[in-house]
Formats: sequence, structure tokens, C-alpha cells
Amino acid sequence: MADDVAVRELFDDARALAASGEWAKLVALVTSLHPADLAELVLELPEEERAALLDHLPTDIVAELFEYVEDDDLRELIKSVGVKDLPAVLEEAEDDVAADVIQQLEPEEQAETLAQMDRGEEVAELLQYGDESAGGIMSRGFVALNENISVQQAIDYLRVLRPPSDRAYYLYVVDNDRVLQGVVSIRDLLVSSPKTLLKEITQRDVHAVTTDADQEEAARILQKYNLLAVPVVDAEGRLEGVMTADDLIDVLQEEATEDMYRMVGLDETESVMAPVMKSVRRRVPWLLVNLATAFLAAFVVAPFEHTISRAATLAVFMPIIAGHAGNTGTQVVTLVVRGLAIGEVRLGDWLTVLRKELAFGIIHGIVAGVPTAVLGLLLSFNPWLGAVVFGALVADVIIAGLLGAVIPLAIKRLGGDPAVAGAIWLTTFTDILGFLILLGTGTILIDRLS
Amino acid sequence: MADDVAVRELFDDARALAASGEWAKLVALVTSLHPADLAELVLELPEEERAALLDHLPTDIVAELFEYVEDDDLRELIKSVGVKDLPAVLEEAEDDVAADVIQQLEPEEQAETLAQMDRGEEVAELLQYGDESAGGIMSRGFVALNENISVQQAIDYLRVLRPPSDRAYYLYVVDNDRVLQGVVSIRDLLVSSPKTLLKEITQRDVHAVTTDADQEEAARILQKYNLLAVPVVDAEGRLEGVMTADDLIDVLQEEATEDMYRMVGLDETESVMAPVMKSVRRRVPWLLVNLATAFLAAFVVAPFEHTISRAATLAVFMPIIAGHAGNTGTQVVTLVVRGLAIGEVRLGDWLTVLRKELAFGIIHGIVAGVPTAVLGLLLSFNPWLGAVVFGALVADVIIAGLLGAVIPLAIKRLGGDPAVAGAIWLTTFTDILGFLILLGTGTILIDRLS
Repeated sequence: MADDVAVRELFDDARALAASGEWAKLVALVTSLHPADLAELVLELPEEERAALLDHLPTDIVAELFEYVEDDDLRELIKSVGVKDLPAVLEEAEDDVAADVIQQLEPEEQAETLAQMDRGEEVAELLQYGDESAGGIMSRGFVALNENISVQQAIDYLRVLRPPSDRAYYLYVVDNDRVLQGVVSIRDLLVSSPKTLLKEITQRDVHAVTTDADQEEAARILQKYNLLAVPVVDAEGRLEGVMTADDLIDVLQEEATEDMYRMVGLDETESVMAPVMKSVRRRVPWLLVNLATAFLAAFVVAPFEHTISRAATLAVFMPIIAGHAGNTGTQVVTLVVRGLAIGEVRLGDWLTVLRKELAFGIIHGIVAGVPTAVLGLLLSFNPWLGAVVFGALVADVIIAGLLGAVIPLAIKRLGGDPAVAGAIWLTTFTDILGFLILLGTGTILIDRLS
Repeated sequence: MADDVAVRELFDDARALAASGEWAKLVALVTSLHPADLAELVLELPEEERAALLDHLPTDIVAELFEYVEDDDLRELIKSVGVKDLPAVLEEAEDDVAADVIQQLEPEEQAETLAQMDRGEEVAELLQYGDESAGGIMSRGFVALNENISVQQAIDYLRVLRPPSDRAYYLYVVDNDRVLQGVVSIRDLLVSSPKTLLKEITQRDVHAVTTDADQEEAARILQKYNLLAVPVVDAEGRLEGVMTADDLIDVLQEEATEDMYRMVGLDETESVMAPVMKSVRRRVPWLLVNLATAFLAAFVVAPFEHTISRAATLAVFMPIIAGHAGNTGTQVVTLVVRGLAIGEVRLGDWLTVLRKELAFGIIHGIVAGVPTAVLGLLLSFNPWLGAVVFGALVADVIIAGLLGAVIPLAIKRLGGDPAVAGAIWLTTFTDILGFLILLGTGTILIDRLS
């Protein structure tokens, strides 16, 4: 059995061999590794050693590595292999992996690489599908059996085909036009009489998606029905590919990361381990937009400077009220964004959600408003200040809850990603409205406050 | 093939039959549904009709429903079945599903239900494992073959066993002590000569987890090696169960939801669709803690009331500076929390992360400080105010970046969940420090500002 400690020790040995340039020994050592571990080792090596090792490894092993890396790492690996050697390596990779790799290249390089590959056309076909569509991440590696053959013929065919074990999980049954009819299980093949036709033992209750379906839809079907793979069909129902659970797990993980990151204005490719200047380019633009919205709030406060200089205690409550409403609303944004993502909330639920958050806002506003009013009283010995602070907090908290629901639902309704900057708009509104309500009522009642 | 529209139409018919109490017709109609869909329908029915339908359905179908629902829905379903009928229903369910159901009951009900079940002991064994451990979510439904039998014996055994297709994906090979040795694939069985011993065709490169391993670790192994199932072994390496991709997808989704929710102080069971009073109980306590930390910040501001009344423009910049530092730091918290969750960041990386965020903070502080200083100048026509505002923003942004990294890493180091309230501590610190720096330097330079 594989052992993590053993793998780490092997990594140390491998790094030493790479450093001293003993490539033959290194290759002998690392070819015993699982490709996922080998990919990790390769990416840990300094750039020059990495390129040298990849040069010395057999192309079929290099091809396997591509299957286990993503995004930034994938680009690093492509760079180290070199565009020149890429066609030979991709020739050994699965179609969908080759398509993923080629997608990372510049347009000219894409055409060149495809032209040099024997299977270029098949791979190019996969490139036509949207990056995040079922067609874009499906694999061609499935086993399809004609419904009119017998159980014995199917077993003989599998003996000859020798599909890798991770492809033979579901055996899909198609008609003469390659239209998906259902599945048979290995079990059914083993226990049925050899002359039975497949169509007689086909389970027809199959959930498929079309090539243009969003990858998230496929993931949801897999999850709902506890499947290990979802077949992908074209508009006519012909079987085109299959999305397996391991691909869809990656999709679900990426979508979750994306939602978390976008809520705080982060690009989904950002990493705390990225180089500083890359992070500057990725993070600063959104932060500046955010700063600009804070300036907006400042312009709201500026005309009230006179009020503030007469009742400076109000300034103490500005961040409390705006901040607390912001927090209350951010919870609602998070619940709605994630609820939409996991299918718990639908657009049609908007009225239910609004009513619920209105009720919540009233209750929570009063619960949080009382201690805030008491604090105001303690700091100023002025019941009027307590009242102003209470009113502003309750009003802003209620508004925040409603906006927290409305903003992501509205963005989704308009076809956008509800996670994008939902929180930034929310806090901008809650800041501005909180300041306006607090300083506005403060100005009206200024003679009572100062 | 299953069709969503057809399913929705069937739902409408089913609801009508339930409303008019035509149970025989209803049962006939819904038994054709996939259990995932049937579970959805059952949960959509009003409570009384739900209980009546469950009463009329065969127990094996009711048992299947439990496999497709979780958490709140699971509790609803248990309530509708009734504790009295539960033992009979669970008798028909998989061990791990039965254990999940029983875990939801009160301790006395648990003992009672187990005592009434024939398989009570086996299920009770699963209950000993931690809720979030591999043992706690593994299934007993695996196929184990002794390494000393021949290929023909294995095929004969499978014919007799007739394992459901979703169990026969990996065929695990064990020795005479039931210690896991590796896997064989159906393909290898089909293509090997009948007399070959299994030990000769066993693939030994298997990644297993122990029963006490965290469920997340199992999910990470599944994801890293693109597997469809991970075997679970005890301390002696004996095969105890298997975690399949569909279970681990649920784990990954829940963990992602948990991280997103905990970052903003939400309980992972919260839903925007939950009843108001439930949400009040779940959300308000954390919000009040949050409010208390805002009060802390207010106590920092209060002593500076005199400064504010002399230079009220400073009040305009309080929310800008504290808010912007909070946003900058929240991005870092999010990156570190998610990075730790998906294994991209490790505790050992702390120095790299701190250095990186220090550099980022200096660069971004200056970039964001310049327009803020200009705004200060425009509002006050006083270069000193521009300088005070610039300095406070740069300092607070740098501190925020460092704290954004330190807080989740420190919580993780101390054995806590880095997602819990990372953001609340961050914004408390950035608020307090931002106000202190701004109003402190403002007080020192008050003669230049007013």
C-alpha cells in the first residue's frame, strides 16, 4: 500500500539526484510513482531541472501527468515540456486531457500543435465546446455497446477491447444510430444467460446531459442521484462522452472556490502563494473600485461635518451602525449565493426570502438596537442620542437584510454571477444609508443632541 | 431516459392524488420514480399527506429514500416515518444509511431502535466512529475477494453474490486476515486465464485511509488520484469499508459551504429558507458578539471626541480607512482559509505567506493611499490632513494583510477551524488599529489640522 512518508522520502532522494544531474537513476526511481505524486514532484523541482527531467521521461508518462494538474500548474508544466515536444506527448494523452492542454496555448500554437498530431481532428472537435460546458470537460473514454448484441458478444467484445478499469464502470447501451438507450452493469452481464440480448437487460432510467449543458448541471445530477458518471449526449440523444465523478468533483470544488473568492472580489485563479506582482495585478483593481465606493460614502458624510463637530458622539456610532448592518447583510448575501449554487434557493423563491428577511431584520434590529442605544446613553447621558442611534441601527439592519437578498437574486435574474461583488454593493448601500439616516436624524435633532 | 419535465408533471399528478387520498393509485404512480426524485416529492407534500404516503409505501422503498436526503430533510423524513416504524424500515437500508438515520435520534430512541433491529449490532458498530471520520461515513457495501482464490472462483463468487452494480466497481483483494492487499478490476478478471490466482493480478498501489481519518483527508486522496472510491482500513490494515465518490462529493460540498458560512459567522445548517425564529436563534448570537467587538472599537474612538469636534473631516475618513483595511484583510483571510482547505497552503508556508503579504500591503497601501490623501486635501485644503490620512491608510492596510494571514494560520495551528470567525477578529483589529492610528496622529497634529 502507498505510504505518504515513503513518498516524501522518495521525493528527497529524487531532488538530490536531479540536483546532481543523474537522470537515468532519477527516471528509474520516479517511474514507480503514481502520476499524481510524480506531477507533484515535477512541479516542486527548479525550472531547469524540471525541464531536464521531463526531457528524460518517456512521453507516455509525461502525458499522464497532464491529467493530474490544473490551471497555473498546468501552464507551468506545458512551459517545461516546451511547445515543440507537445504534439508527441499529447499523442499519448486522453482526448479530453489533450484538449485541456491545448486550450491553454496561444491561438497560433493551438493550430500548429493540432496539425502535428495524428489525432488532431478528434481533439479539435472537443475544443469546439464551451470551456465550462459538459462537452468541454467530458471524456471520450466510455464503453458503448449496441443493444442488439447478446450478453456473450458483449463479454467477448470487452475481452478484446480491454478497457481501462476506470472506463468500464458503466457500460452504455446505444441503438443503431448511437442514441443512448440506457446502461447494463457488469453484474447483469455475468448473471444473465449468454444469449440474452442487451436490450432485454438494459436499465433505461439514465440521467444524461447535453453537450452544451453547464458543467454545474451535470455535477448536480451526479450528486442528486448518487452516480459515479453522467453520460453526455448531443441534441439528437447520441452518446458523445461521459463525465466521471472525479472530473465533476474538480468542477464542484472550483465552483465553490470561485463563489468564495468572487464574494470578496478575488479572481478564482488567485492564490496566497502567487508572486506578489501577480497578486497586485489580480487584487488591486477590485480593491480600488471598493475604495471608490467608500469615497462615495465619504461624500455623504462630508456635508454633515457641522453636525459631527457639534455632536461628535455621532461619529463614534457611524462605524458601529454601518458595520453591523454590513455584517447582517453579508450573512444574507452568503446564504443566497450558496443557496443558489447548491440548488436550495430558486429565483421563484424571492418573495418568501424577502418576507423572511424582513421579519428577521425587524427582530434582530430591535435586539441589537437596545444595547447600542444603551451605549449611546452611557457615552452621552442624553436619551435623544440613544433614540437616534437606535432608530438608525434598526432601519439600516432591516435594509441590509432586504438588500442582501435582493442584490444576488437580481444579479442572477439578469444573467450574471450572483457571487460577483454582491458584498461590495451591499456594503456600499448600507454604509451610505446608515450614515444618511444617522447624520440626517442627528441634524434634525441637533439642538437636542449638542 | 428520464426527463425533468415529465418528472415535474408526475409530481403534479401525485400531489393531486395525495390531496384526494387515493393512496393505492398514488403508490402505483410513484414507485416508478428514482428514489432521489421520490424523496423530493415526499418532502414537498404537506406533513399529514407525507406521513400517510410513507405509511402506504413498501418499507424497502421508504428505506431507499433515506439515502438521498440530508440534515434537516433527513430529520423531517424521520419524523414522518415515526420512531415506531423506524426499525422495520431501517432493516431494509444499507448499514451506513441506517447509522446516519439513528445518529439523528435522541439517545434513548437510538438504543430502542437498535434493540428492535435484527442487524442492530452491525449498525451500532458504525455509530462508534466520529461523525466526520472516514469510519463514520464509510459504507460496508464492498466486495472483498481472498487473494488465494482463482479468477474462475472469483467470477463464480460474483455470479452468486450478485453485488449491486454500484458496489462492484473496485474489487478489493484481502489476505487470510482480511488485510487489504490491493484491487483487481473486472477487466483483469475477464482477460486473465481462469486458473490464475488473484494475488498474481492484484494491483497493489492502493490508497487507503484509516477509520479514524478525517473525512476531508479521504476526499483529498480521492481527488488527488482521480479515484471513484477510497477503501477504509482499521489500525491493522483490515478492510472495514469503502467511501465512494458520491459520498465524498457530499463531504466536499458540505465542507465548502461550512467554510463560506463560518467565515461570516453562520451555522452550516442555516438556510435562507429556514423559518424566521430558527434563523434568529442561529444568526443573532454571532451578530451580537460582532456588535460587541464594534463597541470595543467605539470605546477607542470615544476618548478622541475632542479631536473629532475640532477636525470633523477625520470622521469622514474613519470608515474609509477601517473599511478598506478590512476588505484588504478579508481577501487574505479568504485565500488562506480556502488554501488550507484545498491543500494549496500548509502551516509550514507561514513565513512565505507573511513576506508576500507584507510586500503586497506596502504596494497596495501606497496605491490606495494616494487617492485617499488627494480626497483629504480636496475636502480640507490642508496638506497635513492628506498626510495623516495617507499614513493611517498605509499602516492599517499593511497590518490588515499580515493579520489576514496570521489569524487563520494561528487558529489552524492551535487546532481550531481557521474559517471560524477569522473575519470577525480581523475587522475588530483593523477597526481599532485604524481608528487609533488616524485619531492618534490627528491628536498629535491637531493644531495643524484645525
